[in-house]
Amino acid sequence: MSSSLLRDRPATTNEMLAVFGDASTLRHALAFESALAQAQAEARVIDAAVAQAITAACDGFTTDMSTFAESVALAGTLAIPLVQTLRAQLADTAASALHRGATSQDLADTVLMLQTKEASALLGADHARVVRALTLSARRFAAQPAVGRTLLQDARPIGFGLRIAQWTLGIREAAGDLERTIAANANLQLGGAAGTRADLLGRGSEVTVRLARRLQLNPGPPWHARRGGLAAIAASLAICMGALGKMARDVSLLAQNRLGEALEPLIEGRGGSSAMPHKRNPTSCQVALSAAARAPGLVASVLAGLPCELERGLGGWQAEGPVLAELCLLAAGSARAMAAVAERLLVVDAAIARNLAEADIGDDIGESVQIVTDLLDRPRGAN
Amino acid sequence: MSSSLLRDRPATTNEMLAVFGDASTLRHALAFESALAQAQAEARVIDAAVAQAITAACDGFTTDMSTFAESVALAGTLAIPLVQTLRAQLADTAASALHRGATSQDLADTVLMLQTKEASALLGADHARVVRALTLSARRFAAQPAVGRTLLQDARPIGFGLRIAQWTLGIREAAGDLERTIAANANLQLGGAAGTRADLLGRGSEVTVRLARRLQLNPGPPWHARRGGLAAIAASLAICMGALGKMARDVSLLAQNRLGEALEPLIEGRGGSSAMPHKRNPTSCQVALSAAARAPGLVASVLAGLPCELERGLGGWQAEGPVLAELCLLAAGSARAMAAVAERLLVVDAAIARNLAEADIGDDIGESVQIVTDLLDRPRGAN
Amino acid sequence: MSSSLLRDRPATTNEMLAVFGDASTLRHALAFESALAQAQAEARVIDAAVAQAITAACDGFTTDMSTFAESVALAGTLAIPLVQTLRAQLADTAASALHRGATSQDLADTVLMLQTKEASALLGADHARVVRALTLSARRFAAQPAVGRTLLQDARPIGFGLRIAQWTLGIREAAGDLERTIAANANLQLGGAAGTRADLLGRGSEVTVRLARRLQLNPGPPWHARRGGLAAIAASLAICMGALGKMARDVSLLAQNRLGEALEPLIEGRGGSSAMPHKRNPTSCQVALSAAARAPGLVASVLAGLPCELERGLGGWQAEGPVLAELCLLAAGSARAMAAVAERLLVVDAAIARNLAEADIGDDIGESVQIVTDLLDRPRGAN
Amino acid sequence: MSSSLLRDRPATTNEMLAVFGDASTLRHALAFESALAQAQAEARVIDAAVAQAITAACDGFTTDMSTFAESVALAGTLAIPLVQTLRAQLADTAASALHRGATSQDLADTVLMLQTKEASALLGADHARVVRALTLSARRFAAQPAVGRTLLQDARPIGFGLRIAQWTLGIREAAGDLERTIAANANLQLGGAAGTRADLLGRGSEVTVRLARRLQLNPGPPWHARRGGLAAIAASLAICMGALGKMARDVSLLAQNRLGEALEPLIEGRGGSSAMPHKRNPTSCQVALSAAARAPGLVASVLAGLPCELERGLGGWQAEGPVLAELCLLAAGSARAMAAVAERLLVVDAAIARNLAEADIGDDIGESVQIVTDLLDRPRGAN
Repeated sequence: MSSSLLRDRPATTNEMLAVFGDASTLRHALAFESALAQAQAEARVIDAAVAQAITAACDGFTTDMSTFAESVALAGTLAIPLVQTLRAQLADTAASALHRGATSQDLADTVLMLQTKEASALLGADHARVVRALTLSARRFAAQPAVGRTLLQDARPIGFGLRIAQWTLGIREAAGDLERTIAANANLQLGGAAGTRADLLGRGSEVTVRLARRLQLNPGPPWHARRGGLAAIAASLAICMGALGKMARDVSLLAQNRLGEALEPLIEGRGGSSAMPHKRNPTSCQVALSAAARAPGLVASVLAGLPCELERGLGGWQAEGPVLAELCLLAAGSARAMAAVAERLLVVDAAIARNLAEADIGDDIGESVQIVTDLLDRPRGAN
Repeated sequence: MSSSLLRDRPATTNEMLAVFGDASTLRHALAFESALAQAQAEARVIDAAVAQAITAACDGFTTDMSTFAESVALAGTLAIPLVQTLRAQLADTAASALHRGATSQDLADTVLMLQTKEASALLGADHARVVRALTLSARRFAAQPAVGRTLLQDARPIGFGLRIAQWTLGIREAAGDLERTIAANANLQLGGAAGTRADLLGRGSEVTVRLARRLQLNPGPPWHARRGGLAAIAASLAICMGALGKMARDVSLLAQNRLGEALEPLIEGRGGSSAMPHKRNPTSCQVALSAAARAPGLVASVLAGLPCELERGLGGWQAEGPVLAELCLLAAGSARAMAAVAERLLVVDAAIARNLAEADIGDDIGESVQIVTDLLDRPRGAN
Repeated sequence: MSSSLLRDRPATTNEMLAVFGDASTLRHALAFESALAQAQAEARVIDAAVAQAITAACDGFTTDMSTFAESVALAGTLAIPLVQTLRAQLADTAASALHRGATSQDLADTVLMLQTKEASALLGADHARVVRALTLSARRFAAQPAVGRTLLQDARPIGFGLRIAQWTLGIREAAGDLERTIAANANLQLGGAAGTRADLLGRGSEVTVRLARRLQLNPGPPWHARRGGLAAIAASLAICMGALGKMARDVSLLAQNRLGEALEPLIEGRGGSSAMPHKRNPTSCQVALSAAARAPGLVASVLAGLPCELERGLGGWQAEGPVLAELCLLAAGSARAMAAVAERLLVVDAAIARNLAEADIGDDIGESVQIVTDLLDRPRGAN
Repeated sequence: MSSSLLRDRPATTNEMLAVFGDASTLRHALAFESALAQAQAEARVIDAAVAQAITAACDGFTTDMSTFAESVALAGTLAIPLVQTLRAQLADTAASALHRGATSQDLADTVLMLQTKEASALLGADHARVVRALTLSARRFAAQPAVGRTLLQDARPIGFGLRIAQWTLGIREAAGDLERTIAANANLQLGGAAGTRADLLGRGSEVTVRLARRLQLNPGPPWHARRGGLAAIAASLAICMGALGKMARDVSLLAQNRLGEALEPLIEGRGGSSAMPHKRNPTSCQVALSAAARAPGLVASVLAGLPCELERGLGGWQAEGPVLAELCLLAAGSARAMAAVAERLLVVDAAIARNLAEADIGDDIGESVQIVTDLLDRPRGAN
């Protein structure tokens, strides 16, 4: 009936599409219900046999996704039709034990955090590729005199590698912050209807710890209406895209005809023009710049949702899941595109030299080489 | 491989998903190439037989969407793999006549405008449902004294229908502006590689007029890098969602327990709670409020892309298509949800009267009835 | 104690600072109270003599702005300390007639609309300067072959004036939309405590018409919680800044060394560098690009406030005034800066020719000349 | 000529206005030039006597702010007229030593960071007040059964203090993150024309360290076009406002007539209505909610500027200073307003009990008390 491959695929990677795809969402949702039952059995809130029946039902769950999606859309939440369908397959005791002490948002937020952790790993790998490749380039071209440009005008000479080293630190720091922010905020959500851990026989704290361990999320108190961590993740994602977008901006400016100091690598099937077959478009930079253009507005949406209503807001938090997913999808497209650029960036020495000569600004690159070292050797966490 | 039904479906309608789905995008793209050939034949830029061959190829086009989407993602644009695939099926003359004088963005923007026009019709229908139903309610409850509330505190009495009439005009005006804005800006895009209508034997203007007629879009000069119309559409969509969100905000506040003056209708399968089966959640309002929360950031992205580079920007305009699609999807979900609320809104007279009595603010509703008439009879275009 | 001249002045004009300055705000507020009394006297709601006393008090009002601002800050609204101070100077009858039937938001919104209308006139004048100058340049350079650039790469030749004509239409349409949007939405606000025109003896409609005429605003029903018109104004302002920012983007790209096809005019005292005295920075473009960068987020804030609460929201509308003021201030800076650029833009024929020759893309500018005519002669309202 | 006291003062505090006022900006700018000269003297880049002359000129600098602001506006940067004016008062050697190795952005960014550090201290004090007061309230009401509300509907009972404890942790964590983010990113800017520390005799690194120590900023490599740190500060400010806005949202909802569970304290001169003298408006909440409404768009602007051009961008970074100032001003207003609310929040036990009884949902508050302890005792840095 619908899909958005033509629209979304150019902006992201298949791996990240899979992380936030329906199959993944459903798999994580079932994992939540199953692990919740097991954790409750361990904490003696429900019987082990009952938990086993629930886990079996979750493992065996199948559905027609299109019909199921309709029920979700109608209910306004994944949990209700999922729990309903599972309960229909369970004996009474297990049916009532399923989803015990949980609420729709417990499921939704936990699934989102599981997906965010997977996203973090994917992004981390591509960010590392970028940083690794740029670090080498920065050192290699550290001392090569080139025109430095400010306000889009020739300014003073710089070491060409200084520009690259600046990209490198920007991306490295943003990537590090993202990783730390997700790790710190990938929290289990379990609070039940009003966030009080009711219906768990006073053993909600234990259930939380056990469930968190099973799902490999941080334990902790419910955060249904305390969304600062999620907002911090969103902002970190946007800062990553901004740092990669900065590199893309510079590469695309340097690649302009008449300048031609650096070029995206040729990638078979990429960068063509439907009207001018031999034109070489900075298509990877375009992907990163588009991501950087879309991210700020998405972050604004998440930030705007912070003042949510009482124990669970109306409208605000329901908007966060899709927006966070979008941010991860865009971040993945950006990181993958710029990894390819970083690893095979064409630096054109002759053009750099020619432009510098034409600029007639001498070749004093100041302390560029030292600053490259400062940037690349800067301890983590120092921005 | 991927899909986002579970994530996107609750926020929109199947009809709007279809408008922006892959099948629709591809269909419109083929219609563009086919109509372009026919228009060029009419203008004697290419032979009629050649045009016929192109149209036949477009009509018969099939592809595996998943593989095709990969090519599109790699190329960074739909036009290149589409034209390539079509050309492979055509004899030399027709192959070179295909897509003549056009560029990737001509295709992308034209497809987007075709989809936007379809979106406009869908939205118009649901907006009309809302306005019609609210107009009746506003008149019906115009004189019913109720507590007016400002800054979330009891203020002075109002006619309950005055509040509804205010929603009505807000939505009606926003819907009217949207319709006008889309009609005024649903422009054909045809400019070729650099927006000069080269390669059309000096008959580009005629080709434009004929192509626009075939596609039922406005003719006019290319607008590759002049994106104000698109930004105006985006803003209008957001204002519609804001107006519907305003109604949703009020309904959800009035539906609070202890107040209970108005309630969303009961819809089978909607508004449930996974933890409290008998709770009645304002789920339709939630849909509209989520849409209104996500729209502003999306508009910001489009506005931020206006200062694009030279004859065709890098990164900015490529971000617009997905963002405009998202806005239409959200607008559809909002309008549909609030249409259901408007048509069966439960106004609870007894609660209104009880709250007014408790507020102890008298029952002078001023000129509420007159203002209701002013609002509902206000000529179109007067905000 | 405070001021923001160093921060705000580079982004705007003195005239626009004056429109939204404290003196202007206070003057308009007093005009509202005075005209309200006169309109009520005309409609026989209060005595003419009482109205005269109120008008005299308004005309003679003086205050220490710094102390007065503290009271406003504490009250959270201008109306309360203003009315209080005026009442202290009036006899009892006049004191109770002052501000009759009005509420704080009536004053605040009406003042804002008065300022917005003044802003519209200022902006219109500078927009007209830009359009006039660009129109001449576009015609003059319509046929001059130049490199067309897409995705920041050389594409195909264009008439240099085509690029300018595209700027022209973009700015002209945006300016026209802004003017129309402000004219359509510059509405008097008068509804009283709950928006019902209570306390006006059933003659609120007449008072509204008379007051609107005195203040030269549109009459009409109250719009305390129906803010779509204000959002439309905000969006129009941003689209103007986007259209001017587009021109600024292009000029700054064309002014790059090695390209040098067009340059900002030299303005004494502008465009210098504190480190490189002879560098020529595109400082006017910078002003316009900064404005275009700040506008989208400001519009998002206004849009996000649309779903406000019941008869008068809490937090949302109070944010609109400062944000709309900021948008007007930025729009003024942008328009003034680009008027100077448009009127004395340096087009460097030799560089254009040299770049075209080096690009080796021929000199077929297609239908550039015709499209220039199409763009410049396009009827108003057709985007 | 201009000022914005009436507009800005209700949204902020006098102390924060002073931090970002013209006097402060100029003072910090002079401190930069003076300390730069001293640091260069220490590093033997310039003579001690010359440095002394520069410091004396900076100490004795006076100007007419209004005229001076005009020059700044024309130049587009504070540094140029400041350096010019100072040089006019200095002998030749000192004149050429002034601002040596520095560029306009070095001055602008360093001044901004000095102001941001001052802002951090002010905000920290008010945030601490909020957290301290809320912590007490949360413990006090931890076990008091109250209606928990989700999606604006009665859900299950909670301990009233659980709600407060959730606010507390949200604000505490946001405040802690802000403090850490500013401390980590309050970096000296010193790179000179192209960010290479040219013209410092190869001793730029030493000058940097000495200058940073004098100004009490972090030393480190230039960051002219690496703006992630600044974006992180902006996001942290918005998250603080979001957390305070969340508390404001809840208080304003709880203060609704018919609910009346908690109220803003009465503050003389605050919360009045110009139309209904005895109405009690949640004006402090309004300040915090307005701030939270304006912050997201401002953050979006900063994020959008990340992909800036080459060694120093055009338009983007020049937009950051005013936006960061605005964020600090709003954050101050929000924190101060909510500190007053937190310290004298009226919790109405009787209303809480009455609402709970009417809700008929029992009084099982689950593990509320335990969760309050979890929240309040949560180690710093664990979200």
